[in-house]
Amino acid sequence: MGKIVMGPQTLVYPMPTLLVGTNIDDKPNFMTVAWGGIANGEPPMISVAIRHIRHTLKGIRQNGTFSVNIPSADMVREADYCGITSGSKVNKVEACQFEVFYGKLGNAPLIEQCPVNLECKVIHILDLGSHALVIGRIEETHVSESCLTDGEPDVSKIRPITYIMSPVTRYQALGEVLAKAFSVGKELKPGQ
Amino acid sequence: MGKIVMGPQTLVYPMPTLLVGTNIDDKPNFMTVAWGGIANGEPPMISVAIRHIRHTLKGIRQNGTFSVNIPSADMVREADYCGITSGSKVNKVEACQFEVFYGKLGNAPLIEQCPVNLECKVIHILDLGSHALVIGRIEETHVSESCLTDGEPDVSKIRPITYIMSPVTRYQALGEVLAKAFSVGKELKPGQ
Repeated sequence: MGKIVMGPQTLVYPMPTLLVGTNIDDKPNFMTVAWGGIANGEPPMISVAIRHIRHTLKGIRQNGTFSVNIPSADMVREADYCGITSGSKVNKVEACQFEVFYGKLGNAPLIEQCPVNLECKVIHILDLGSHALVIGRIEETHVSESCLTDGEPDVSKIRPITYIMSPVTRYQALGEVLAKAFSVGKELKPGQ
Repeated sequence: MGKIVMGPQTLVYPMPTLLVGTNIDDKPNFMTVAWGGIANGEPPMISVAIRHIRHTLKGIRQNGTFSVNIPSADMVREADYCGITSGSKVNKVEACQFEVFYGKLGNAPLIEQCPVNLECKVIHILDLGSHALVIGRIEETHVSESCLTDGEPDVSKIRPITYIMSPVTRYQALGEVLAKAFSVGKELKPGQ
């Protein structure tokens, strides 16, 4: 099996599809972010990469807070819309009919229809080039009651969306369960 | 639909399953990381969160480089193994029968069997608490020839693994295509 060299690429599979929320001039706005992930365990932190020109960055700087909302598969149209439009030109909340609520932080807007909502306080903003890497401490987590099983968030009810960059940019659902984590690898442990 | 408040949680769906490679005392080693993602576009950068006690962090500090390898669904056992063992105690390359090669950077070990390999140079190491957030510039990308379609990396051939944290920790494959990105959202655009 040969390898082809392709130069520096932002090629990670799979990426999440996240809706980052901020208040901008006191109005809620959301943008779609695929470049993000958990950044720390204790305390829980998350990072999201946001292009400098984005309206969302203005809101993050104004408030020192933001939210991360996880849309479900039936919100794929709304998730895409929030990535291809700017809050400086359209009212995304209205266009998407998002029901917005606020939690512990008071100024990080959350989307009722998204099964998981994280409220974040900004810890670092790193200028890395085209994007700012915003690192936030997760201050509160909200999960839709209908997406719990025995009190735990259930991925099969949340139905998150992955963002795929290549060969064509598209959204995919999750598929078959491959194995239990912290378990299947034991088969390779010497003496087991 | 009610919401349940769950306190600060590292709850993002979906997370990737990545194998981070380093040379430690000149020997290749790999650990599994789910807390990572693209951190910048131009130049391409990636971030990975690594617990301070991890052997991998020693290798990253020794060399100033690391690799990110994307395992395919048929490597789920190896991916799990590299997360539940330490390179300070076992030879993971041997246990997993990884064929290791080196690229442009010379000291960031890459796994032949993984369809996608990124070579990275360390730009920042942020101490965020329990974890160090390592940010690397992607210097080179290798893709298995068998995973290309018309010269482009093809996710349906790469078959990446998602890591799911709740309700139980497990690995899942990708599923059905939901929609084309930068496209389906146009249905919501006013006047279209």
